Amino acid sequence: MTRASTFIDQQRLWDHHMAIARFGATGNGGVNRQALTPEDGQARAALAGWAGERGFRLIADEAGNLFVRREGTDPDAPAILSGSHLDTQPAGGNFDGIYGVLSAFEVLEALEDGGIEHRHPIEAVVWTNEEGCRFAPGCTGSLVFSGKHQIEEFLDFTAPDGAVLRDELERTLAATPGAERRQGGIPVAGYIETHIEQGPRLESAGLTVGAVTGIQGGSSFAVTVTGIDGHAGTVPLQARRDAFRSAHGIIDALYRDLADPSDTVRFTVGRFEAHPGSPNTIPGKVIFTIDFRHPDQAFFRAKVNGMAAFCAAHAGPCEVVVQERHAGDPADFDETVVARIERIAGELEIPAMRMPSGADHDAKYMVPLCPTGMIFVPCLSGISHNEDERADAQDLAAGARVLADALLEMARG
Amino acid sequence: MTRASTFIDQQRLWDHHMAIARFGATGNGGVNRQALTPEDGQARAALAGWAGERGFRLIADEAGNLFVRREGTDPDAPAILSGSHLDTQPAGGNFDGIYGVLSAFEVLEALEDGGIEHRHPIEAVVWTNEEGCRFAPGCTGSLVFSGKHQIEEFLDFTAPDGAVLRDELERTLAATPGAERRQGGIPVAGYIETHIEQGPRLESAGLTVGAVTGIQGGSSFAVTVTGIDGHAGTVPLQARRDAFRSAHGIIDALYRDLADPSDTVRFTVGRFEAHPGSPNTIPGKVIFTIDFRHPDQAFFRAKVNGMAAFCAAHAGPCEVVVQERHAGDPADFDETVVARIERIAGELEIPAMRMPSGADHDAKYMVPLCPTGMIFVPCLSGISHNEDERADAQDLAAGARVLADALLEMARG
Repeated sequence: MTRASTFIDQQRLWDHHMAIARFGATGNGGVNRQALTPEDGQARAALAGWAGERGFRLIADEAGNLFVRREGTDPDAPAILSGSHLDTQPAGGNFDGIYGVLSAFEVLEALEDGGIEHRHPIEAVVWTNEEGCRFAPGCTGSLVFSGKHQIEEFLDFTAPDGAVLRDELERTLAATPGAERRQGGIPVAGYIETHIEQGPRLESAGLTVGAVTGIQGGSSFAVTVTGIDGHAGTVPLQARRDAFRSAHGIIDALYRDLADPSDTVRFTVGRFEAHPGSPNTIPGKVIFTIDFRHPDQAFFRAKVNGMAAFCAAHAGPCEVVVQERHAGDPADFDETVVARIERIAGELEIPAMRMPSGADHDAKYMVPLCPTGMIFVPCLSGISHNEDERADAQDLAAGARVLADALLEMARG
Repeated sequence: MTRASTFIDQQRLWDHHMAIARFGATGNGGVNRQALTPEDGQARAALAGWAGERGFRLIADEAGNLFVRREGTDPDAPAILSGSHLDTQPAGGNFDGIYGVLSAFEVLEALEDGGIEHRHPIEAVVWTNEEGCRFAPGCTGSLVFSGKHQIEEFLDFTAPDGAVLRDELERTLAATPGAERRQGGIPVAGYIETHIEQGPRLESAGLTVGAVTGIQGGSSFAVTVTGIDGHAGTVPLQARRDAFRSAHGIIDALYRDLADPSDTVRFTVGRFEAHPGSPNTIPGKVIFTIDFRHPDQAFFRAKVNGMAAFCAAHAGPCEVVVQERHAGDPADFDETVVARIERIAGELEIPAMRMPSGADHDAKYMVPLCPTGMIFVPCLSGISHNEDERADAQDLAAGARVLADALLEMARG
């Protein structure tokens, strides 16, 4: 039987990455292509153009998710989906997200080039706003597609630049005027997402493909610490209600509480603002974020549920309010999908291993809908969310070849 | 011998404060009377009016400093000066600065009421632009009077509102058209400045007067910590170059190194920015400020000179650059003046203690010119630079009584 992987074109896949990298290029090798910006729309329009050249159908839903569809032989069979996102962090790279979109599209082109038929339709999908840095939370598109949320819940959200999601979504949809409109989630028979690992494990192990077993639990908190502004020269330290020092104490206690010799815990303070922000004024208010992740369900839940009390216990003389913005339990991928990816990699002589995902991905929200899995490829030094993010053209093609054969097996089944 | 303090009029002193508080009143109990604004001119004109009613000479110099002079019996004796400033922060209070001006003027009125003569002339002085929030740096008037700077160095400075200091100074001088003009600093035989404490120590100790021993050394640093941006979910903690965590480690080490049971050290982180500032991105860059102050010259200099090396030693896997923005050594006041203030407070049965000044004041620049000291009175909860700044009429009068006797002793000597 013809293997779809035979028709994967490494150069075409690479060229598509470089073409999309122009939209939001920072001039430092990276991109700033945040969700629902004009640059997001430009990248979608480029993909729509390539889809049109190949005669694929283009479909958009109410969340701005974009689907490039290659029909199957059975008009009633549910679709097999594959994709990721094309939005980035403010100083992001050329591979995070977009690789999942372009490798899925490459599979459609490979199938077309090989004249290969399949029973189920296959759709390459662009999920809206995975990163969530302009409009939090992220994974807006996959959350709506999965039915976990309605788009109406997000429409009034406002970006730091003042833009409202409703308007930005409308403008982004207008960037692909040729797209048919489809409302809501459709029946799906399977989902595989490819992605750069965003960590150093494949590179360290000298392997090319990760058969991802699941996604660790992830949580995000916003912590507001309130004290009293004061004169930095006059108020004795013992008399202060210094919001900075209290925030420092909370974070210090968290570093100690979450210390982990196995290095499995992920704990990050990504945003930290001191107000009023004058060098000679004791801050009366501090706002910071906590990003905490762990693959073990019981450990994860215990820490998440105890976070507010823990912060309050270490706030010193200040008031503290802990807002849970997001807390998603660990999600396990489908064993048949993981095993299929592992087997196909072996057949293609691509060195692979099983591994969990440290990052959240849209795939997480597909788990309840259909057999779901992910394929990781290495990125240089594990660096991502960074303009220095790099991936190798051969590795990207290797992942796409595994994806092609896996999708075709599922679409034939 | 008649004591000048006998003639201090608590109600008159209070009424003068309330009269000046109208110029720039915010409607929230505070004032916005920034340097060289029309409100500054209005307050000067009010003072000039009161001076004219009592027959005192009014003098202005090239920096806009305003002097109200009561002549002494020896026309060749150098003047004794006392005063402060009447400009405020944008959301300032009714006592910071203006108390030093009005208590000095109250002493002149008390001497007049008591018909008391003295050998040296006594001048109540308004120093221009102490706060420095409209035209930085502050203490413009005292810096020029002291000869440390020439007014020409500041004339082209521009305020955030676009105003140029030259024009604003000219307009402000025009608000007191009756003032004689005097060029440059004059010989001075002594200087005492009264001020609200701007800290909580007198209030906590239940005391009314502080005999200020000097102004502590003050320094300001900007620290830039550089690591590598990364994904909060994927990069193991041991593999990170997390600029936030390195900044946290530096600050933690500073808190430990500067821990001081005597609570004399002042250490403040007033500004702290994490970049790129996304909740799920490991910060690759952090910028924060250090405000460090101490009254002991040797301790202050050792810490200031060692700051860059100290930060570098605690930066973990990140790079650190420490920029010294400002480092002014401590200034000690004249022991005879401090002792005189302490003794007079005792004679008047006003509870007092020696204490350093946490904030900078115009008095700092008088130290090289003549025997200099300061008198502090309490302010509610140590709050200043704030519309909620409050002081008690009895405390203000008590400080003025100590000032009156101290100035008279110096003016007779």
